[in-house]
Amino acid sequence: MKFDLKLKEILGLFAQASTVGNCNLKSLSGISSLTDGIQGDISFLGNPKYKHEVSGCKASLVLVPIDFDKDPQENQIFIKLNDPSHGLALICKFIENLMYPVTEAGIHSTAFVEDTAKVSPSASIGPFCYIGKEASVGAGTQILSHCHIGLATRVGSHCKIHPGVKVLTRCEIGNNVILNAGVVIGSEGYGFEQVKGENIKTPHLGVVIVEDNVEIGANSCIDRARFDKSLIGSGTKIDNLVQIGHNVKIGKDCLIVAQVGIAGSVRMEDQVIVGGQAGFAGHLTIGRGARIAGQAGITKDVAPGTFLKGNPALPVQLAHRLSVLQRKLPDLFNRFAQMEAKK
Amino acid sequence: MKFDLKLKEILGLFAQASTVGNCNLKSLSGISSLTDGIQGDISFLGNPKYKHEVSGCKASLVLVPIDFDKDPQENQIFIKLNDPSHGLALICKFIENLMYPVTEAGIHSTAFVEDTAKVSPSASIGPFCYIGKEASVGAGTQILSHCHIGLATRVGSHCKIHPGVKVLTRCEIGNNVILNAGVVIGSEGYGFEQVKGENIKTPHLGVVIVEDNVEIGANSCIDRARFDKSLIGSGTKIDNLVQIGHNVKIGKDCLIVAQVGIAGSVRMEDQVIVGGQAGFAGHLTIGRGARIAGQAGITKDVAPGTFLKGNPALPVQLAHRLSVLQRKLPDLFNRFAQMEAKK
Amino acid sequence: MKFDLKLKEILGLFAQASTVGNCNLKSLSGISSLTDGIQGDISFLGNPKYKHEVSGCKASLVLVPIDFDKDPQENQIFIKLNDPSHGLALICKFIENLMYPVTEAGIHSTAFVEDTAKVSPSASIGPFCYIGKEASVGAGTQILSHCHIGLATRVGSHCKIHPGVKVLTRCEIGNNVILNAGVVIGSEGYGFEQVKGENIKTPHLGVVIVEDNVEIGANSCIDRARFDKSLIGSGTKIDNLVQIGHNVKIGKDCLIVAQVGIAGSVRMEDQVIVGGQAGFAGHLTIGRGARIAGQAGITKDVAPGTFLKGNPALPVQLAHRLSVLQRKLPDLFNRFAQMEAKK
Repeated sequence: MKFDLKLKEILGLFAQASTVGNCNLKSLSGISSLTDGIQGDISFLGNPKYKHEVSGCKASLVLVPIDFDKDPQENQIFIKLNDPSHGLALICKFIENLMYPVTEAGIHSTAFVEDTAKVSPSASIGPFCYIGKEASVGAGTQILSHCHIGLATRVGSHCKIHPGVKVLTRCEIGNNVILNAGVVIGSEGYGFEQVKGENIKTPHLGVVIVEDNVEIGANSCIDRARFDKSLIGSGTKIDNLVQIGHNVKIGKDCLIVAQVGIAGSVRMEDQVIVGGQAGFAGHLTIGRGARIAGQAGITKDVAPGTFLKGNPALPVQLAHRLSVLQRKLPDLFNRFAQMEAKK
Repeated sequence: MKFDLKLKEILGLFAQASTVGNCNLKSLSGISSLTDGIQGDISFLGNPKYKHEVSGCKASLVLVPIDFDKDPQENQIFIKLNDPSHGLALICKFIENLMYPVTEAGIHSTAFVEDTAKVSPSASIGPFCYIGKEASVGAGTQILSHCHIGLATRVGSHCKIHPGVKVLTRCEIGNNVILNAGVVIGSEGYGFEQVKGENIKTPHLGVVIVEDNVEIGANSCIDRARFDKSLIGSGTKIDNLVQIGHNVKIGKDCLIVAQVGIAGSVRMEDQVIVGGQAGFAGHLTIGRGARIAGQAGITKDVAPGTFLKGNPALPVQLAHRLSVLQRKLPDLFNRFAQMEAKK
Repeated sequence: MKFDLKLKEILGLFAQASTVGNCNLKSLSGISSLTDGIQGDISFLGNPKYKHEVSGCKASLVLVPIDFDKDPQENQIFIKLNDPSHGLALICKFIENLMYPVTEAGIHSTAFVEDTAKVSPSASIGPFCYIGKEASVGAGTQILSHCHIGLATRVGSHCKIHPGVKVLTRCEIGNNVILNAGVVIGSEGYGFEQVKGENIKTPHLGVVIVEDNVEIGANSCIDRARFDKSLIGSGTKIDNLVQIGHNVKIGKDCLIVAQVGIAGSVRMEDQVIVGGQAGFAGHLTIGRGARIAGQAGITKDVAPGTFLKGNPALPVQLAHRLSVLQRKLPDLFNRFAQMEAKK
């Protein structure tokens, strides 16, 4: 990925900071680590432990801490900042606005918005979007192509709804929410009971509520509740292809990695971290700050702060110990057979 | 989720049933369990073992069995029914029609229907739908926004096809089928063979047939067959994000939970139940009524009625016993080392 | 699946080959194995070890090796070919063109193509497609309904992009690529760090590059890179519902089966084969020609050519041996208890 950034504009982002050195390039073209940086790149010293790498760095522009006392090489500029990582974030935001420009406010000529829907004049409704009856879309929200916003669904302000997202009937999406392409919110819950060989359906009349600052990955699905609501707490980040069943309540600031499956009525408290492909049986409570390893299978409640692994899931230390012993089983069986033979 | 139901209308659903008690509310606003019910709620005694919970229930309307002999509290009505669960289903259906109204018959102004397609006048074709050449859509079927119905594909009557579903070329969907948002039916099968480091493709010319009363969850995928058909038997219910490979034949009334993967040419008999994230290798036969635990890995044929767990999958009792013994391995290794030391 | 193929046309595909026997049918209606073939079918002897099955085969047309010395039955034709499997591929291609006809070149009346996009006159842009600014679509490429081709994204020539595919901003798709329905290319990477209970986001400014002859299954997702590129090497075939994280580099001619998950920055070399539902932790290197069994959990680098299974993943022979010993644990515990009791 090559950029074409004017050096002057990048320096302009840090007008208040002091700089050291000179650079005869007019434009910058990439971002890289201290060790990978080449001429034209931007690099940064985010973690003091990599301090020694700065002297060998070939990047043309390096963000360094304010107390960094080495000099730049020839044709290299240091920008001295209280927080170089924050400086990098500023540059990234600047690049993002250039490369992934915000779509224009207004309703695309090919979109269809029902008369009773309310769309903020500063929102952007993309090509081939359908906005349902009584739906509302808040200020500054961008809805890209081919989205479906269902009957009486509310989307907050400053959201980014990527192409092909479907938010079905009567759901609520907070502010600053990002829904990646193909996400489905509010699908029918999976509630069936096999009675005399026939599958009897539980109706699902509830909704999904997604709170502020949530992000949900591509093609993930969140089912609506039986009568009440499925809930994704504020600040929670969900990766791609995740399945969240009906009536699940996810707390605030959780991290749920790709392809995780959470069955109906699970209640997950705040700040839980779940590795990829882990699975949860229904109706469990997962305590605050718990960590679940990738591919773990959780079939019982999880106490706050514990770290589980495997299926059946065990405390991670025990799981590791058992893995080691398992590999010694051939030896144990041999030693035991020898002992028996001796008698 | 709050409703706004007129009490009179709800009572009207049970005009033939006897009621006891009085209620001064004009409207009802929720459904809940006996223990959670608050004023304004509807509740129900579905299972006699919760009989004792009725006396403490605060819901305004309670469905009880016809032989229930306690009296309601003040400002509470009992409706006496042969089958309170069936009564609840009636109420749910009524609410569903209010909150998730059936879309109007007819073709939306933004849809595109090929001249040679046949759409029943009582079907509803939603915004931005594409109905292919020689395709047909049956009576009362609702196809919501952004769906693709491919060349020569037949969709039966009284189906509900949610937004963004793609039913590709020459597939057949029965009657009363529900396809949730983002479902893909008839994608190309995954048939490759690595020959001298190159992946040679098997062409996939077959189709997918989905029988009556099937439901398929959001973003699930069913591949078309090599020459013949992939088949989902009537009454089978499939959850979200499930993968069903080419030439798979699923029997009748199976339950397949989220994120299950079934490789090519598996034959699953009737009434099999599969837990979430389980996986099946290709070309297996899974016997009638078998049960497969979540995350199980099935690599051999499964006899009818068996219940398997784990990977490699074992009879569930044995799997549990081995889990218990595994946790005792550290102890066993210690005891054994002590015994060796004694000699 | 029944076809309606004129016998004359099929024979016409092999005008140079010698045929033996006669058939009074005018049309052929299916393809099947030697043992399943019925009148009207086409069958083939692809592997010499099934030679003995030809004499019982009831198919009307059989492709046999050039040195096959038996005679056909009455009302049966043998076509003698150097490579009967290649002959079958020819027939399949012929059928595919009939049953899954190439869409017409040109832009559908309902599609929306930005003024600055470049679409080859021989490309086909389907109903309700959106082609973004500065995007390009190469010669002979078919883009089916409801696709989104993002800003400055390039799609090569002779690709098939199935309905509902989203290729987001600035990505590059090579030539002869097949993207199945619902695929998402270029979604935001999942990069978050939990700092003091809050999830801090890593911006993702990079792209996805998909090289020539790649196929990607329905509803699979490939995230864009942090600054650089996520890469799918030429000839690699990816099944349905696969998750590929940001900055992942997949080599050439890999096979990745359904529901596999690959975390960020994994580097997979050429000709790796990965079974369904396997998972990879981030930042690993997977050596050339490695094989990973279904549901395996890979948390360490994998040496070239190794075959791993299980979680934690072990060499497949060892994993099998441990599975066998595990099942003998109840016996071992019993024998050990007896030995202790004797003392």
